[in-house]
Amino acid sequence: MPTETTSQPAEAPSPGCPDDLPFDVFARDCPSRETLKHVTDRWGSLTLGALLDGTFRFNELRRRVEGVSEKMLAQTLHALERDGLVHREAQQSNPPRVDYALTPLGVQVARQLHLLIALVEARMPQVLAARERYDARHDAR
Amino acid sequence: MPTETTSQPAEAPSPGCPDDLPFDVFARDCPSRETLKHVTDRWGSLTLGALLDGTFRFNELRRRVEGVSEKMLAQTLHALERDGLVHREAQQSNPPRVDYALTPLGVQVARQLHLLIALVEARMPQVLAARERYDARHDAR
Repeated sequence: MPTETTSQPAEAPSPGCPDDLPFDVFARDCPSRETLKHVTDRWGSLTLGALLDGTFRFNELRRRVEGVSEKMLAQTLHALERDGLVHREAQQSNPPRVDYALTPLGVQVARQLHLLIALVEARMPQVLAARERYDARHDAR
Repeated sequence: MPTETTSQPAEAPSPGCPDDLPFDVFARDCPSRETLKHVTDRWGSLTLGALLDGTFRFNELRRRVEGVSEKMLAQTLHALERDGLVHREAQQSNPPRVDYALTPLGVQVARQLHLLIALVEARMPQVLAARERYDARHDAR
């Protein structure tokens, strides 16, 4: 039955998010900001991008994501696993091995991220030209 | 006239990038990695997202991007301006004011980024549920 209180959002706002939006990265304490950080920070974005190509063992991932330390990769994988984007599977083998793969949710997010990465890579000639102009302008001062 | 050397990439690789790709964020020293960082780090992503809504003055941006310090916002805007994504315009007014807006290149990148942000916000209920499962599993150990 319709009521007078239809102005309430369908979904209750999460603590730290504004009342009129369930999740909003612009709000300081909204948990979506933390997840966006896990997805887009240097190692998170490269790890998700790498896992789009399939299942990897820890050391395979380390080689693919050039420059990441063991500690940072472990931390990155934990955060992505906790957010439900990466699945960690310990194989019953000898020696034991652990495989990392994207979850279905992780695939969605990684694909969207990949489009952004591909755009940035494709636009780098324009970015480098802009940097040259900027530096020339600021050196001339 | 066709030659034998058609296997060369159309675009010369940039220093730090692999030979077979003009730009590759997975390569440690490729400048695309730095630009991706400017676009996706906490304040860069929120600043680009805010500027999708129009032109802002510095203090307006600071209010929109909750939690950013004056120093971090200034640094973020400089990096985005140097990469050719943000246009800074000092108005001849009294008191003087400075407006910030996206360049056409910035609009392209910010729109792609916005799709990622919208996806992350929309999937937060699943992310929070995954966190609860993860924490329950790890507390139980």
